[in-house]
Amino acid sequence: MTVSDIGEAGLLERLFPRLPQSRATLLGPGDDAALVAVRGGRVVATTDMLVEGRHFRLDWSSPRDVGRKAAAQNLADVAAMGGVGTALLVALALPGETEVSWAEGFYDGLREECDLIGAGVVGGDVVRSEHGITIAVTALGSMRGREPVTRAGAKPGDVVAIAGRVGWSAAGLAVLSRGFRTPRALVDAHRYPSVPYAAGPAAADLGATAMCDVSDGLVADLRSIAVASGVSIEITTEVLEVTAQMRDAAQALGIDPVRWLLDGGEDHALIATFPARVDLPESWRTIGRVVRGRGVYVDGQPSADQGFDHFR
Amino acid sequence: MTVSDIGEAGLLERLFPRLPQSRATLLGPGDDAALVAVRGGRVVATTDMLVEGRHFRLDWSSPRDVGRKAAAQNLADVAAMGGVGTALLVALALPGETEVSWAEGFYDGLREECDLIGAGVVGGDVVRSEHGITIAVTALGSMRGREPVTRAGAKPGDVVAIAGRVGWSAAGLAVLSRGFRTPRALVDAHRYPSVPYAAGPAAADLGATAMCDVSDGLVADLRSIAVASGVSIEITTEVLEVTAQMRDAAQALGIDPVRWLLDGGEDHALIATFPARVDLPESWRTIGRVVRGRGVYVDGQPSADQGFDHFR
Repeated sequence: MTVSDIGEAGLLERLFPRLPQSRATLLGPGDDAALVAVRGGRVVATTDMLVEGRHFRLDWSSPRDVGRKAAAQNLADVAAMGGVGTALLVALALPGETEVSWAEGFYDGLREECDLIGAGVVGGDVVRSEHGITIAVTALGSMRGREPVTRAGAKPGDVVAIAGRVGWSAAGLAVLSRGFRTPRALVDAHRYPSVPYAAGPAAADLGATAMCDVSDGLVADLRSIAVASGVSIEITTEVLEVTAQMRDAAQALGIDPVRWLLDGGEDHALIATFPARVDLPESWRTIGRVVRGRGVYVDGQPSADQGFDHFR
Repeated sequence: MTVSDIGEAGLLERLFPRLPQSRATLLGPGDDAALVAVRGGRVVATTDMLVEGRHFRLDWSSPRDVGRKAAAQNLADVAAMGGVGTALLVALALPGETEVSWAEGFYDGLREECDLIGAGVVGGDVVRSEHGITIAVTALGSMRGREPVTRAGAKPGDVVAIAGRVGWSAAGLAVLSRGFRTPRALVDAHRYPSVPYAAGPAAADLGATAMCDVSDGLVADLRSIAVASGVSIEITTEVLEVTAQMRDAAQALGIDPVRWLLDGGEDHALIATFPARVDLPESWRTIGRVVRGRGVYVDGQPSADQGFDHFR
């Protein structure tokens, strides 16, 4: 059964019961617009688009995987400001021949990810596309009284720390690209990330001076903090973990696994800078420090990485 | 010069200065997420997607037209709740060969529409697509102390009124579809709507019991109010204006212009129901009344229109 078979109204009838609910939802989907409760006079807002073939492949990812990934990468952006995601709006362009079960699975994935932090889907749009699936998710979030942590506040003398994992998604992608489906943990990490949501607000409470999530790659995203803050960042790779599975996969594929750690995006770890006096909890591991100057240095060497560019 | 020539960073450098600013923007584009000021503890939120070839054609619409339309249809949804649009998030999927000037023109159009009500663009995403341009806009808005006007509050005895125009976009589409580019007023109306933004909050202040915008067609959208409110709606077409240009175009094309008025969408007029005692200002014209029962009646006849379905 395809979405053309049941039409827009039939599709929405099947999707609405799948939407996660949130206490912040004052008025949910079905009217011209939704109404979302906002505390403290300001709302965090971010949007990301996923294009089939570029951001996900239907032969590699289940619809549930794509739903989790689409929700996670937006909710991670809210966490990276020190906020808590409360509501998603989801726009979906589908070819008419898309199976209804795909759309249902996608929304089930959205709900699973939202349920991790109690966010709701409050609105959306479903339109027909001629070529492949395109997804646009907007996440709204609450600062819950905290001040937002931008990329621009890192100061010389600060320590640099990371919460969550890096390199897993890139390793999974490399494995999938060579036609393998294992190791499962790496492949699954590429399908959707495991975001350390609570570490974002925790970092704000600890006095983080700058923060962002790792969507483009550790070095590229550290560079965005360095540039925005007008500082240099030095990290060492020895504290970053190359797991046994990652090492074995890298060996089999003839790849240096440290590249995955440094250049791999989409794990949506959080990276932040803290005043040196701050006693960091276990969820945050120190990987370097902020110094005067420009650029990112890895194990003492300047990193030439320019980050991922969609159009180059 | 294409977007592939200058890359994502080069493109963003050219787009950022074009973004409209708003007093509600506490933190604008460039970080993980934006921060938007919200009064009254709640925010209005809505999203719409536009797909090239389905919602706009590059040979019919300039990039500026597409930008205005993308902003307008979302800001109209906010107005249809009785709110005022304050912030947009704009996700854009572009083929690499898209001219940079197209993207610039699109953002100029977004700004022109936003400037009508003082809204800002606070965030976005630009990604590469393989097939055509896809646009997803999310609008956030403020109720400014008003209660939201949903589709569900119409009561028997209420009057039905309209602010703004209907049939213009459909007439313009019919003209363009037959290969003509005039009359200019109709063709321009199809390229982007002229939304009566102020009439939305005004209706809320006047005590409107239900409201929505005409995006799918007058009868289809009246039906959505009738269904949500559990009532029947009767309208007369005599008060709806068939302009001289519309009449001439309809005659030349062999079309009944009343169909444009009743079934044409995308003009984003506002339709609302009010208690009969309310003294409506000039911007709202009475076109009918709410009665007990089901369905929409036009000039005494039940309307069989089922509304536009993207997938059928």
